[in-house]
Amino acid sequence: MKNFNYQAGTKILFGKNKINELADEILPFGKRVLITYGKGSVVKSGLLDAVKSELKEKDIYIEELGGIQPNPRLASVREGIAICREKKIEFVLAIGGGSIIDGSKAIAAGVNYPGDVWDFYIRKAVPETALPLGTILTLAATGSEMNGSSVITNDETQEKLPTSSECLRPKISVLDPTLTFTVNKWQTASGVVDIMSHIFEQYFTPDLGTDLQDNMAEGILKTCLKYGPIAIKEPKNYEARANLMWASSIALNGLMVTGKMSGDWGTHMIEHEVSAIYDLTHGAGLSILFPNWMKFVLNERNAFKFARLGKNVFGIEESEAMLAATKTIEAIRAFFTSLDMPASLSDVDIPSEHFKVMGEKACQFGPIGYFKRLNGEDVTAILKMSK
Amino acid sequence: MKNFNYQAGTKILFGKNKINELADEILPFGKRVLITYGKGSVVKSGLLDAVKSELKEKDIYIEELGGIQPNPRLASVREGIAICREKKIEFVLAIGGGSIIDGSKAIAAGVNYPGDVWDFYIRKAVPETALPLGTILTLAATGSEMNGSSVITNDETQEKLPTSSECLRPKISVLDPTLTFTVNKWQTASGVVDIMSHIFEQYFTPDLGTDLQDNMAEGILKTCLKYGPIAIKEPKNYEARANLMWASSIALNGLMVTGKMSGDWGTHMIEHEVSAIYDLTHGAGLSILFPNWMKFVLNERNAFKFARLGKNVFGIEESEAMLAATKTIEAIRAFFTSLDMPASLSDVDIPSEHFKVMGEKACQFGPIGYFKRLNGEDVTAILKMSK
Repeated sequence: MKNFNYQAGTKILFGKNKINELADEILPFGKRVLITYGKGSVVKSGLLDAVKSELKEKDIYIEELGGIQPNPRLASVREGIAICREKKIEFVLAIGGGSIIDGSKAIAAGVNYPGDVWDFYIRKAVPETALPLGTILTLAATGSEMNGSSVITNDETQEKLPTSSECLRPKISVLDPTLTFTVNKWQTASGVVDIMSHIFEQYFTPDLGTDLQDNMAEGILKTCLKYGPIAIKEPKNYEARANLMWASSIALNGLMVTGKMSGDWGTHMIEHEVSAIYDLTHGAGLSILFPNWMKFVLNERNAFKFARLGKNVFGIEESEAMLAATKTIEAIRAFFTSLDMPASLSDVDIPSEHFKVMGEKACQFGPIGYFKRLNGEDVTAILKMSK
Repeated sequence: MKNFNYQAGTKILFGKNKINELADEILPFGKRVLITYGKGSVVKSGLLDAVKSELKEKDIYIEELGGIQPNPRLASVREGIAICREKKIEFVLAIGGGSIIDGSKAIAAGVNYPGDVWDFYIRKAVPETALPLGTILTLAATGSEMNGSSVITNDETQEKLPTSSECLRPKISVLDPTLTFTVNKWQTASGVVDIMSHIFEQYFTPDLGTDLQDNMAEGILKTCLKYGPIAIKEPKNYEARANLMWASSIALNGLMVTGKMSGDWGTHMIEHEVSAIYDLTHGAGLSILFPNWMKFVLNERNAFKFARLGKNVFGIEESEAMLAATKTIEAIRAFFTSLDMPASLSDVDIPSEHFKVMGEKACQFGPIGYFKRLNGEDVTAILKMSK
């Protein structure tokens, strides 16, 4: 187990009607709030009005920025920063899924930064201060509600890049599983794949002696296997939605990677290249890519880790490690397919023409991945396996 | 899954030599520190001197209070409060195991409280403010390093009672596994039993729909089963010590009980009555009592939970629930015995004379336990099963 520092201080308000407690939690941070959201669903469902009414009851001043897109665009972020500066906003409240939250983190980070917010994503600068941020989660998937990471898309350069800083970790997150009752099959399944992928990214590392973390990671995966299909069949099943929602936060709040040098994150980097150009749902992209990444990196030396996952999560009893590993990867593909998630890029009408450029772009800052280092050609090879 | 709020903001500095980072973490809280510790081992090992030298390098003023006992006594606590008031202490730094940390929490809570600190433990008052607290953990067991709970003993009344408040949660905890290399077999085994017992207390509740938490709890138990025996056989095995140390914190930082009404805590309450009189090592008391509590509360309706634990943690394949449950309890006893932990009160020379009084005292504030409510007679019955 490697040395680490760990602090995940986000206050979680979990359960039905927890938005009722939100205003009191925001007040210590300020009385001028920018509410950010995406499509009109938050408006139509009445959630936005309910939140505004809670805040107004405590005399909180509200500005709004709607229309933030999935794979959030730099243009929306810049608009939010301008509002915060002009209206002297003290707290940003994101209502939505990972895209809205990630875009809002960019806004929060950009307000007090004299340069262009995109600097944080091209590694020209690191966010050191940010407006305090809260979230009301409406989709169990990215874990952004409890971590300091943000991914946004620059439409001009067709780049989708991440940044990360402790100051971007939300101070408060409301996790009300009933807010995900209306999430459709496709988005629910994508969320499940995303949660599982976050575990894979942190489970498949070369670090040894992290049994505790890996045991817990397997517990989260088992939760996804059990409740993913239930949430899809019975969208209003509270227990299924609740388990998935809390799983999404724990899977990526830093706990699972404690004692490890880092996660692998190669597959996420590859998926970002695809969705930067094609605006693919993140979880669907991961569904296509992850089993192929696994096949590509599997070898005699690391097969034991795949075999362990197969045994503890999928109940695969097979003593020969390479065979067990192959069966494990097949089981993961079969599970994704059972959720009607795509298995190839052609399933989602993505052609092979940009594979080479995607490989180069994925590695523009150097090789990616930690379980196995990948160069641009490796990435292109994985994309070809996924076509 | 029940509604909950969760926030566990303790900053963990984990790994070899992490005390090097401590002074910088303390400074934002103040420059006047009371260091608390227990027996001379912290002095003899050179740890105390090393810590003092780190703090002095940053011009931090230091007071010391040594000699805090296992099952910390009220007298030490009062002495610590007097020092803090007289010397205008701004931060309490506990070096030791759960007893030292719990006693230090009492000191931190008492400094700004006009009444007697014992009020917090007899439920006359709730700690609302406390001096900020840090810990350097030297024993993996109680989880006190990452939670807001404290248990102390009133020697005059022979009472050992708990209190709990968010303000008692440490701001910083240093978890350096090498500091536990010198922990002897008995204390190591007691620590493992204590960690497992914390999981049991939160696993055995009547709440349903908490698969995520229960899956992770099983992962922590599996870690104890694997690394407990290794740490005892090879006291300087870093991976074993590291996994147990991080397990101790996660087992009782609030995460495992999210979505549940509360933990059961009946067995802990009973153990406190025994050790209030006999100064028994906490983990040893739990080793004696827990399997007997399990036998006492087991019935046809709750057997499934024991069976689940048996299957997922001990690999017990038995389809009949009551039989599986019984085998699970036997497996737990066998594991404790394999660690040379006692199975009966007579093993540790505790007679039956106070069983009735212990039962009454355990229930002085009403019935205890949540998985099954226990009255004084139930407690006495469990003590008789344990004699």
